[in-house]
Parts: sequence; structure tokens; C-alpha cells
Amino acid sequence: MNADVLLESQRVRGGIRAGRITGTSRGMAPGFVQCNLAVLPKAYAFDFLLYCQRNQRACPVLEVTDPGDPEPRKLAPGADLRTDCARYSVFIDGARQDDRTDVRDLWRDDLVSFLIGSGITFDDALERAGVPTDRNRWVLRTDRPTEPAGPFKGDLIVTMRWLTPQQAITAVQVSARFPFNHGAPIHIGDPAGIGADLSAPMFGGPVPTIPDGLTAAFWACGVTPQAAAENAKLPLFITHAAAHSFITDLPADRLMTS
Amino acid sequence: MNADVLLESQRVRGGIRAGRITGTSRGMAPGFVQCNLAVLPKAYAFDFLLYCQRNQRACPVLEVTDPGDPEPRKLAPGADLRTDCARYSVFIDGARQDDRTDVRDLWRDDLVSFLIGSGITFDDALERAGVPTDRNRWVLRTDRPTEPAGPFKGDLIVTMRWLTPQQAITAVQVSARFPFNHGAPIHIGDPAGIGADLSAPMFGGPVPTIPDGLTAAFWACGVTPQAAAENAKLPLFITHAAAHSFITDLPADRLMTS
Repeated sequence: MNADVLLESQRVRGGIRAGRITGTSRGMAPGFVQCNLAVLPKAYAFDFLLYCQRNQRACPVLEVTDPGDPEPRKLAPGADLRTDCARYSVFIDGARQDDRTDVRDLWRDDLVSFLIGSGITFDDALERAGVPTDRNRWVLRTDRPTEPAGPFKGDLIVTMRWLTPQQAITAVQVSARFPFNHGAPIHIGDPAGIGADLSAPMFGGPVPTIPDGLTAAFWACGVTPQAAAENAKLPLFITHAAAHSFITDLPADRLMTS
Repeated sequence: MNADVLLESQRVRGGIRAGRITGTSRGMAPGFVQCNLAVLPKAYAFDFLLYCQRNQRACPVLEVTDPGDPEPRKLAPGADLRTDCARYSVFIDGARQDDRTDVRDLWRDDLVSFLIGSGITFDDALERAGVPTDRNRWVLRTDRPTEPAGPFKGDLIVTMRWLTPQQAITAVQVSARFPFNHGAPIHIGDPAGIGADLSAPMFGGPVPTIPDGLTAAFWACGVTPQAAAENAKLPLFITHAAAHSFITDLPADRLMTS
């Protein structure tokens, strides 16, 4: 590859860093893995990594930076995690602050950054396999507890999609090829089976009655570790704002990492 | 399932604990996941977990216990990691001690245990798919560095198998179904492609000249993190002795954990 030619992921991150791109990352740089970002002090890093290990369907960790290092050297060499998400959410002692487009002024030498694979990653593969991804998609709370670690705990959060039975079968097969981006569904069929709360979706708007002939499929969702970190009321916790994920240079069709 | 009926994995661990079973775990309790064991002080647990995350093909962590807790509550409730491997290797300040059959006297409140999926796990699935696993199998050093974390580093160690081309194709497909037990091969064909050291295999005896018509396939091996932990010369490091893995209650055909 010509070193002068930018990848689409690099081009988009450059636009975000320069303030030219300010919106959602959904649909940007298709074919590249997108990640949820979680930044927290080193003192909490072991427990958070352990939480992710114990709940790896929801929290597939793709990279952890060394303390103080804002560069994800493996997934996006040259990128800066302090500026290359279009929008950040910031929590101080558990209290949500105003969103920011840059967190350089909050940066500390003891901050560890976690990049966690996002389900957005396999949208492209689903589309190519004939499974629509742009509608009938919600993020829901469930009553299934995650396995805690230190101060991190909470119920599993899932992405629900409504699919035809044939699409659901295809979606299981396609998403299973991405074990480090949530993989196959954790449930299929009746939302009550996992206590999915249809009355108050976290994203996706109100949930209508499920039409006859469609099947609900549920994937473990990367909002799970984000919620666990918010609830832990850390002195400082920085994350991407919803739908403003970090875009890596890793091709989504690369099946396995490291 | 009748609670009075022991699983085969439980029966074997009971025999090991009682001293009736003293040999290799290979071939014991077929169909249950076997794990490499690594026990080290909490002060090193974050770096070791990070090392495993950064090299997850070689180091698929399936469970991490809380400090001081010798029970793997997820993979083998009721088991005791201090007594339920048939043989342990112990390192103090990096110096290898005599092997033991019980490490209760070395136990400390700050010891964290890591259970790391072993490639033995998919032997059974390979056999059922027509791929022989009992011969033409070696553990080799390579010249591929792993990604370091804190004091943990070293070259990748691999399992090499010699297979017919058709068996190799089958083995890729079958092992890919076990992403949390090393998954698909990391290399196939010429051993020199990954600098595999055929002259001094770690296990499996001398390597003869590869016969015409056979293909070498290489899987990332769980000896990798064990060697990295030995080389780190920790104050205390306990591991299963080679080929004396910890046998869990997790069915090997369970495709994904948590």
C-alpha cells in the first residue's frame, strides 16, 4: 500500500480531529471496526479489564493502552484518543458533565484507554448477507445480571433486531464470525426470556408491537461496560458519546485479532 | 440433571484430589474444556491479564478468580485449584522448585488464578471430524515476539501438527469454532514462515523430516503465557505441570463463554 494514500478510517479521523466531521460515526468508513471507548484511572484498570473478561460477549476488549498513552498503537497507529472521537461524554465522581469534542485538558498520566468492539462492526457484513440493519433496531436493558468485578456491575444491555426467520438464521451465522465483536446472539424469540425492557429503550425510540412473522434477536451490547463504569462513580470516566464511536484501521472482515 | 450424579470432570478431579489419579490429564474427561493454570500475586495480575488480552490467540482467558479464592466458581464450582491439578510447577523469584501435587502450603490471600483455554479442548472435535490428534504433534518456539505488558514478554510458542491437505482444511474449520481455545491456526505451510524452531521442540520429541504430501499447521499455544510468566521472575508463580491441566466442567462443544 502506498504510504501516502490514507485509509478511509484515517481520513475520517482526520476530519473529526480538525472539527470538520462532528456527527455520528454510524455509516462512516464502512468496513472498518468501530470501537466503544472507555478511559479511566489506572487504579481501576484491573477491575475493569476483569469485568470485561468476565462478560466478554458484551465487552470484547480489542486494545488497552499503556497508562497515559493516548495512541491506540495496534488498532489505529498515529490516532489520538483525546481528539479523534467526534463527541465525548465525561463523568466526574459519577456526575455527568457537558459533552466535549476534545478531552486533552482532562488528560492525565494515569489514564488507561480501553477500546471495545462495537456491534456496528458487523452491520456491513449483515447488509451484504441480505439482513437489513438500518431499522427495527433498539438498545434495551435486561434483568440478566452481569458478573461483577470490583466496583463494576449491572444488568446486561442488549441490541435487539427484528428479523424474518430466514434473516435471523443468516444473522446468527454471520455475526458468529465476529466473536470479538459480540459474536452470535445471546437470545432469540421472546423478549421476556431475558427480561428485556421494551417499555424504556435506551436507543432506537419507542418499541411498537412486534409484527407477525418477525423474530426478535438479541446481541450483547457494548453499552453494558459503559453503564457499569458510569455506575461505579469513578473520580474520572471518559467515554465516546452515544453513536460517536472511535473508528479504527482494522478491517471488519479480519476475523480474529492478535 | 440429577445433582447426585457426578460429571466425569468432577469424578476425575475428585480422583486427583484424593491422590488416586496422578498422571497426565490428556485423554481424561473427554468433552470437557481443559485449562492451563497460572497463579500469581495480585500486584502482577493487571499486567498479566493485559498480556493475555494483547495476545489472546495464545492466551484465551476463560476465568480469573478473585484474590485468595482457590475456587473457579464459573468453570468448576466446588473445585479447589490448590489440589485439583495432578501436578504443579512452582517458581520462586524465577527459580524452578520441585514439582508438587498440592500447593495449599504456598497459598496466600493475594494470589489470583487464571484459567486459560487449552488446545487439548478441541482434540476431541478434531478426532470426530476425522483429524488424528495423537501423533505428529509438537510444541515449538518461534521467532515471532508477543506483544509485551509490564514484565511479561517473550516469543510466541505454537503447537504444530502434520496433516494431509484435506485434514488441514477440516482442522481450520473445526478449530475456528473454538475462538476462546486458540481458534484457527495462525500459520500453515513452511515452518520458517514464523521462525518455528524444529531443532529443539519443547514437547513431542525430535521432529523428523516432514513426509511428502503432509502440511504443517500451527496454532498459538497456551505454553506462551506460562513461559512469559516464568521469564518475569515473579516472587511466586504456580502453574500446572506440563500435560497436567486443570479439567473444568465446561462442555468443550459450548462454543462461546459468558
